[in-house]
Amino acid sequence: MRVLVLGGDGYLGWPTAMHFSARGDDVAVVDNFAKRQWEMEEGIEPLLPIPPLHKRVRAWQRVSGREIGLYVGDLMNHRFVYKVLREFQPDAVVHYGEQPSAPYSMQNRTTAVDTQINNIVGTLNLLFGMRSHCRDAHLIKLGTMGEYGTPNIDIEEGWLEVEHNGRKDRMLYPKKPGSFYHLSKVHDSHNVEFACRIWGCAATDLNQGVVYGVDTEETKADPDLATSFHYDQVFGTVLNRFLVQAAIGEPLSVYGKGGQTRGFLNIRDTLKCVELAADNPAAAGEFRVLNQFTEQFSVLDLANRVQAVAKAAGHDTTIVNTPNPRVELEEHYYNARHSGLVELGLEPHLLDDDALGKMFATVSANVGSVDRNALAPTILWARDSRACLCPVP
Amino acid sequence: MRVLVLGGDGYLGWPTAMHFSARGDDVAVVDNFAKRQWEMEEGIEPLLPIPPLHKRVRAWQRVSGREIGLYVGDLMNHRFVYKVLREFQPDAVVHYGEQPSAPYSMQNRTTAVDTQINNIVGTLNLLFGMRSHCRDAHLIKLGTMGEYGTPNIDIEEGWLEVEHNGRKDRMLYPKKPGSFYHLSKVHDSHNVEFACRIWGCAATDLNQGVVYGVDTEETKADPDLATSFHYDQVFGTVLNRFLVQAAIGEPLSVYGKGGQTRGFLNIRDTLKCVELAADNPAAAGEFRVLNQFTEQFSVLDLANRVQAVAKAAGHDTTIVNTPNPRVELEEHYYNARHSGLVELGLEPHLLDDDALGKMFATVSANVGSVDRNALAPTILWARDSRACLCPVP
Repeated sequence: MRVLVLGGDGYLGWPTAMHFSARGDDVAVVDNFAKRQWEMEEGIEPLLPIPPLHKRVRAWQRVSGREIGLYVGDLMNHRFVYKVLREFQPDAVVHYGEQPSAPYSMQNRTTAVDTQINNIVGTLNLLFGMRSHCRDAHLIKLGTMGEYGTPNIDIEEGWLEVEHNGRKDRMLYPKKPGSFYHLSKVHDSHNVEFACRIWGCAATDLNQGVVYGVDTEETKADPDLATSFHYDQVFGTVLNRFLVQAAIGEPLSVYGKGGQTRGFLNIRDTLKCVELAADNPAAAGEFRVLNQFTEQFSVLDLANRVQAVAKAAGHDTTIVNTPNPRVELEEHYYNARHSGLVELGLEPHLLDDDALGKMFATVSANVGSVDRNALAPTILWARDSRACLCPVP
Repeated sequence: MRVLVLGGDGYLGWPTAMHFSARGDDVAVVDNFAKRQWEMEEGIEPLLPIPPLHKRVRAWQRVSGREIGLYVGDLMNHRFVYKVLREFQPDAVVHYGEQPSAPYSMQNRTTAVDTQINNIVGTLNLLFGMRSHCRDAHLIKLGTMGEYGTPNIDIEEGWLEVEHNGRKDRMLYPKKPGSFYHLSKVHDSHNVEFACRIWGCAATDLNQGVVYGVDTEETKADPDLATSFHYDQVFGTVLNRFLVQAAIGEPLSVYGKGGQTRGFLNIRDTLKCVELAADNPAAAGEFRVLNQFTEQFSVLDLANRVQAVAKAAGHDTTIVNTPNPRVELEEHYYNARHSGLVELGLEPHLLDDDALGKMFATVSANVGSVDRNALAPTILWARDSRACLCPVP
């Protein structure tokens, strides 16, 4: 299979590219290093430095004997996108190539607008390009569970059977996203569904939960093949932050009440899910949505889990509740279906204490690289007390 | 009340500005004449020429003795938007300032992307500007009934009470729009709902049907105060096209089966609806959605109505079914609620034969100005037979 990975320099893009390459697929990566630029703007680095993508591609060839193609360019440039699709003729396009951070998008007007333009236009260019240059290719688009928000009913996989006033329809699941970034993914989903409906594109929208872990079969083969670990307020996840806080002896800071519940998955399962989607493509005209996570945790659950694992490793850690920089429900119902990928064959790696302990050991071994300044949540969803209004019924 | 009308040079923007001005409100209009530029790109003119906005503002002052403020600039320029909001300090912002044509957006990648960027970024700039410079102002945002598509259940006003697996929530009504333009309005709606939820903005989203008519109390006062009549394939509506086809002796061309059913309203009712929304604003934090139309017609209904009115005026007209340039359902259930504005006090002007006859007389009096080239539907939603696939269940 010919697999094109957009955002191939990223936390998930690079391991995904190696994963397909390792099983013998023809793989090429696309990136413009926008994320590295955003990191520089924010003064942020991953815990351990990541070599340039050109160097990682060479390291992979050295280690595996396999070649990964490299295209450097911006998805906002449609001529570049068309050229890549025309030349590479992918069977599957795995689209991670977007601005991936909610806090980044919430900083100010510029970052909100840039996030929406970057993500929407990149995806539109891709849809038009695929229509013209690789019509039968399967688009595997990374979305996020955050598109759904925290509704008071069960979250289904993208579509909802609605019965209303005695009539029925299968409708796109109503979304209530929590940031301008999450909104950009909702906009993408609507645009992609339209392309399927009108042009007969085949697309899978993977609404992914929060990914943890850095080790995959391929990243472990050489230090130059590692992927990034972000613990900062912009690109980090809550689990990574807790691990770093425990390792440097700071309290684990739970934003608000800590009842915020989300779906999580191991990076190995991300790779397997994308592989399963590629091997079982959507039909022409189908907009297939799969919820890509394996377990649900609340923020407080995670804090307790990290506290226990740190204690077992000899680190006494406290948990504190701090003001929530986001405007979100802190106590809510949350039950999201995620059976589609299991039906395709996913066997989840769950977050057991062993997995958590290994992550904690990795972080502990690198505490000297931690930048404490990067942890504080200075990006606020709203600036004053009038925010946090509940929606008026 | 201080009323700022964005897109004040447009078909509805200009009559709306005069309508508020006539009742004594302080009114200013904003436009960058983008729509006139798009008309020029397409080689299209309204049936009768429309003077420059500066001249219309002066004519209004001459006729009414009232002043309408004029700001020339682009909503994509946030510094301009912020300056206008800071200076004018509106109580209500009526936002018509978007690319308004589905066919325009479906021409190619450039027009699709330009439509989405223009509409989304303009609205985002407005939301950020209102947050900073006129926090308590009420945003009255023009959406479209086309956001809903043609679901097999009743269309509600923006929100839907969903019961699922024994639990309930009030959710945004699921949308299935039919063009990149309609998608841009869905994206707007999500962004505006978020601003209400997170920042406490007050917004009314008016999901408007197809507007017909050109005469309002104010436009009739002077030829220089007239608003535009578009019958072309890009900015025209189906009713206007039928009137023109009947007047010039061409068959009324029904696209496909003609069962496509939509909501319609008289331009006088548009003005009244916007006035009612302004006088009964949404609460802080409320995202209120109102479906703004008064009657439902199928395309074939309208063809029959126009045929009858033309016959009464001595014009024999035939109706022909031609290939549908759009990808859409041509026979479908359609029942959309539109009680919110009636509850606020709307008394509809329905499309009776008298109203239709007057429109036909106006068009007939100006057949010499009709450009027959503008009628043919050359903009196609999809280019080949693989399109028109039904969504895979």
